[in-house]
Amino acid sequence: MSRASMKDHAFKPDMKEGLYRAIHSRRDIRSQFLPDPIPEEVLARLLLAAHHAPSVGYSQPWDFLMIRDLKTRQAVHTAFLKATEDAAQKFPKEKSDQYRTFKLEGIREAPLNICVTYDHSRSGPVVIGRTAVPVMGPYSCVCAVQNLWLAARAEGLGLGWVSIVYNRDLSAALDLPDHIEPIAYLCIGYVSGFPPEPELETAGWLPRVPLTEIVHDGRFGISCAGNWPELHQALLKEQKGIYSFPNKK
Amino acid sequence: MSRASMKDHAFKPDMKEGLYRAIHSRRDIRSQFLPDPIPEEVLARLLLAAHHAPSVGYSQPWDFLMIRDLKTRQAVHTAFLKATEDAAQKFPKEKSDQYRTFKLEGIREAPLNICVTYDHSRSGPVVIGRTAVPVMGPYSCVCAVQNLWLAARAEGLGLGWVSIVYNRDLSAALDLPDHIEPIAYLCIGYVSGFPPEPELETAGWLPRVPLTEIVHDGRFGISCAGNWPELHQALLKEQKGIYSFPNKK
Repeated sequence: MSRASMKDHAFKPDMKEGLYRAIHSRRDIRSQFLPDPIPEEVLARLLLAAHHAPSVGYSQPWDFLMIRDLKTRQAVHTAFLKATEDAAQKFPKEKSDQYRTFKLEGIREAPLNICVTYDHSRSGPVVIGRTAVPVMGPYSCVCAVQNLWLAARAEGLGLGWVSIVYNRDLSAALDLPDHIEPIAYLCIGYVSGFPPEPELETAGWLPRVPLTEIVHDGRFGISCAGNWPELHQALLKEQKGIYSFPNKK
Repeated sequence: MSRASMKDHAFKPDMKEGLYRAIHSRRDIRSQFLPDPIPEEVLARLLLAAHHAPSVGYSQPWDFLMIRDLKTRQAVHTAFLKATEDAAQKFPKEKSDQYRTFKLEGIREAPLNICVTYDHSRSGPVVIGRTAVPVMGPYSCVCAVQNLWLAARAEGLGLGWVSIVYNRDLSAALDLPDHIEPIAYLCIGYVSGFPPEPELETAGWLPRVPLTEIVHDGRFGISCAGNWPELHQALLKEQKGIYSFPNKK
């Protein structure tokens, strides 16, 4: 097969750019939610995107719980407050003070919450690809979350993943059946804007990790500079902010 | 904020289509790999996409181990053979026979393997959002895998996730440090083609799960037909194959 026909499978530049723009401008949204409802046809596209995620052994082990009811969201928010207070006490004093200043969820402000769950019984007791690594089931659900997140960004919708809630509290607030495990509690809605960088980076909590330090050649700790010089140079450029990445912002 | 300005955050149709096309035409590739090398500038875009995944508390806990060496790949393949034989014995006889006919990996045929790993020590002992749900660390790495997978599809590259290997065998074959946990072993390369549907669906192993059965209104088992009629209709259309989804194939 010739190089030319191999390249037939690649997208045209504008289509490629659409994907990369979604990836690079996606943010975890907590503070920018608007109350406007989300059109149901848009929600259908989001759920279809999630449902077309990869799943181990084609088990599709996910469910999507659509939560608009304010009483349920209030219960989840109460569970969040408990878990975030526990969390604050785990940081050293200075970090703890800064942690308490962050807004880390938009449970009640977003017009819609979706809980993505994992069904332990879906597709039978033995699932291809889950036999050696059982956590592949939950991992499939995470792939669905990421598809949903990127689709939301393309539709102009913000999404925030609230993970500061104990699973047992979440299961109780949502009356989840015993065989259903919560994977992701998501807040979704239109937004006043998407921050240009992750908010924890802007706040000085943590910096972007340099990619050249975490891409290894064959064995951990071996830089790609030797055997992958062009790759290494491209990653270095990105770190210096001079890489001409399409639509990063 | 007006509806018009809210919509400003949405992508233009062709950009949206690029994302949805990547999501809907992405496949787990095992049999279609070509040996042609992947340009390093393309690899840089894939790794940048992965590195811009969401991560719990902005911890970016992933590493990327680039594996071209055939001896290492052979060791991983040997570990795969052991785990897949264990797996075959877990299925009932008839399913086991069919399981053995499937090609489930392209470890040696693909020109590149990448192991995405989770660093338990990255960004300190207390990570925002990981306190109540420790597995959020590995989940972040899975989001990176999904970004990488979608970017690969847009670049015309196939990717297969090999999960039929025990983590201890994988760690041994790759000399992983103790604080590093393998999350995903990926085979990547140009392909002769992308199957129009997931191969396990085509083979009759499992059908696509109807979305209307797994999207619930507020509580498990409550259909969206009542309170989300347009959403329900859109999902029903998709199930009947008449939903006009942009570039599903």
